[in-house]
Amino acid sequence: MPLTFAPPSNDKAELETGSAFTPRFDEKGLVTAVVTDAHDGALLMVAHMNAEALALTIETGIAHYYSRSRNRLWKKGESSGNVQTVREIRTDCDQDAVWLKVSVAGHDATCHTGRRSCFYRTVGIEGGKAAVSIDDDHRNFDPADIYGQG
Amino acid sequence: MPLTFAPPSNDKAELETGSAFTPRFDEKGLVTAVVTDAHDGALLMVAHMNAEALALTIETGIAHYYSRSRNRLWKKGESSGNVQTVREIRTDCDQDAVWLKVSVAGHDATCHTGRRSCFYRTVGIEGGKAAVSIDDDHRNFDPADIYGQG
Repeated sequence: MPLTFAPPSNDKAELETGSAFTPRFDEKGLVTAVVTDAHDGALLMVAHMNAEALALTIETGIAHYYSRSRNRLWKKGESSGNVQTVREIRTDCDQDAVWLKVSVAGHDATCHTGRRSCFYRTVGIEGGKAAVSIDDDHRNFDPADIYGQG
Repeated sequence: MPLTFAPPSNDKAELETGSAFTPRFDEKGLVTAVVTDAHDGALLMVAHMNAEALALTIETGIAHYYSRSRNRLWKKGESSGNVQTVREIRTDCDQDAVWLKVSVAGHDATCHTGRRSCFYRTVGIEGGKAAVSIDDDHRNFDPADIYGQG
């Protein structure tokens, strides 16, 4: 029987200190997932999980998400081979976010652009405007090779 | 004049490699903010920002969020003194999330429970059910002292 989740308690103390994991899915049925590298703590990506993705992740130890752009369950690395083995799952005080510490297989790349992390840019102000600057441009794979030429 | 953000491009390449920071606010006008400690990289919290909070954060260097429970701008630490000075802001490939590396003042605590991080619990399966286990129960402050007895 697949893992299911009980509805969250209305009692804040129960949510914060009880022993049940009762994720607070939003109105779309999603929680936020923050993904870091279990080896060095680098932030790799932020994604979303529905109950099915979360249950599969806990049960299999392989990270599954819900793709909001494709509206479907998404086993990370299914195309690229950059599968994530989950070393630890944590949740926050109000149980609406999870933190996955993972080991990345394949090219050790998490971003679809081929970079190790999706967070390859810094944010600042340039000439009075909000600007980004790429400070990690190393590609661990060529997206055209993996995903085709679109 | 407060910092404003241009609407995101429909061109994926522009969004991923252009020089403009054009955050992709969701239908509620929010982006996800992941907050880590600039000193040791620990994940402290996950929150949300509207355009006002994001602009204030970039302009002042002090972290501001949008509180979904209180429906208002939220200067982190306004009650507790645990103000966050922002050392770096990053964004991800599709610009719908930001990563803040911060230094925490006050009690060096980010969670309203008094703990350093909101992610004080691990997630697993106990007796066939989804369960959480507290593995950081140290309180840097007593919430009753800071927020009152509710």
